Amino acid sequence: MQPWHETSLRVRYQETDKMGIVYHTNYLVWFEVGRTDLLRHHGMAYSQIEQMGYLLPVTDLECHYVEPAKYEEEIIVKTKVEFFNGVRIVFAYEAVRKADGALLAHGKTYHAWVDVKMRPVNMKKKLPELYAKLGVE
Amino acid sequence: MQPWHETSLRVRYQETDKMGIVYHTNYLVWFEVGRTDLLRHHGMAYSQIEQMGYLLPVTDLECHYVEPAKYEEEIIVKTKVEFFNGVRIVFAYEAVRKADGALLAHGKTYHAWVDVKMRPVNMKKKLPELYAKLGVE
Amino acid sequence: MQPWHETSLRVRYQETDKMGIVYHTNYLVWFEVGRTDLLRHHGMAYSQIEQMGYLLPVTDLECHYVEPAKYEEEIIVKTKVEFFNGVRIVFAYEAVRKADGALLAHGKTYHAWVDVKMRPVNMKKKLPELYAKLGVE
Amino acid sequence: MQPWHETSLRVRYQETDKMGIVYHTNYLVWFEVGRTDLLRHHGMAYSQIEQMGYLLPVTDLECHYVEPAKYEEEIIVKTKVEFFNGVRIVFAYEAVRKADGALLAHGKTYHAWVDVKMRPVNMKKKLPELYAKLGVE
Repeated sequence: MQPWHETSLRVRYQETDKMGIVYHTNYLVWFEVGRTDLLRHHGMAYSQIEQMGYLLPVTDLECHYVEPAKYEEEIIVKTKVEFFNGVRIVFAYEAVRKADGALLAHGKTYHAWVDVKMRPVNMKKKLPELYAKLGVE
Repeated sequence: MQPWHETSLRVRYQETDKMGIVYHTNYLVWFEVGRTDLLRHHGMAYSQIEQMGYLLPVTDLECHYVEPAKYEEEIIVKTKVEFFNGVRIVFAYEAVRKADGALLAHGKTYHAWVDVKMRPVNMKKKLPELYAKLGVE
Repeated sequence: MQPWHETSLRVRYQETDKMGIVYHTNYLVWFEVGRTDLLRHHGMAYSQIEQMGYLLPVTDLECHYVEPAKYEEEIIVKTKVEFFNGVRIVFAYEAVRKADGALLAHGKTYHAWVDVKMRPVNMKKKLPELYAKLGVE
Repeated sequence: MQPWHETSLRVRYQETDKMGIVYHTNYLVWFEVGRTDLLRHHGMAYSQIEQMGYLLPVTDLECHYVEPAKYEEEIIVKTKVEFFNGVRIVFAYEAVRKADGALLAHGKTYHAWVDVKMRPVNMKKKLPELYAKLGVE
């Protein structure tokens, strides 16, 4: 199991809704910000991986909402690789309010590595240095 | 179990991403469009329910992606109430490509009815006509 | 000058913000929905035009806000071609509340036709049937 | 004229579209991030201003696109107050690619200070310390 990787962001006005809190799908956008920040941190910018012809679409996701995030609050997105066997990868996330560490939401996203024709690829072979850093079976 | 309620929409350019397909969180926005359309269909516009002081935040969700939706395609969002005991409600969804009926994604959202102070309310008592139409225990 | 082409939509919860009204950039998303609906109406789906290798990026835009749109309201987006000389095209828009015809916002977007390498193309030559339908100089 | 205030952000995958570049309305979201960061920098968080009962809706905007921003690039949003007489305020913006300083887009947003009933208010009287810092006539 990898340790949590942390990414900071501040809630945008655009991310709120008429309930006065963050619209629920934005946590999933933040999770995406977290996982690409984690990859970049490991020296593998997702933009570069895509340029090599590999994509990482989401196949499944789940999210659980605990407390609402509000406009202008600072949020810590915590991300880790929960499983990665070269072909499939699962990320786990927590969104935490920076001011008091309160857990706001947590979730998981499940992905398959594919090529530009959406055929599965094994990153253990294609990008062994990525697997070496993130592999968790 | 309620039957599926169907809502039509067309994929917007804004909903696509650089993978050339619909960005994954937009299916959840479509599910929201589906569930509020279902409520409206039953004579209970969610905007009116909110004006009465009741809110329906998402507490949990899950989504499973089967095939990508693409720009300008017509999508049928199928929504039904899977569980509603007055206090909690669970909606199930399918997003289907209209042209050939292919299943693109399916998911569930879990909600609690609350008042404006985020305290739980029982809609069986507060809005018995809503419960009469949607109740599924 | 072309007549107004009308497209209907309903305000999504996701499009609102904590001010309780529609977040201002969503009118521009609606304008995009309007202009691609206008093209489709003229037998030229923008998805097909892109498949031929032509793109229509926005180079400039302006928007003027008159009255706020609110959640669940039905909106008519009125779109017309104000100028089209084959190379550049200008669309004008109005967003109108269906219930009472009130003008909510109006604006313009300016575009250049380009190929996939972002080089200008002349649609008078490349797609004369599009120019025949939309040309306004 | 105020000097430029600078805010950094990184392009999110969610902000791209199928053209492979940032969808055009996201620059306006970034401008919002820039102007609220400018207010916060001057000790007046917009979230606090709203809690006092004052709102700053956009009444008009314009944006001009020069070069496309791409996924994962770092962007500097430059913001300044161009006019502020207590009642109305105009912000000017530039979005610049951090790597080479290239101008990607520039624009302006026009706002009126209002109270929660959308009636105009004069911030020279209501929040003189804000006016003292930002006033430009």
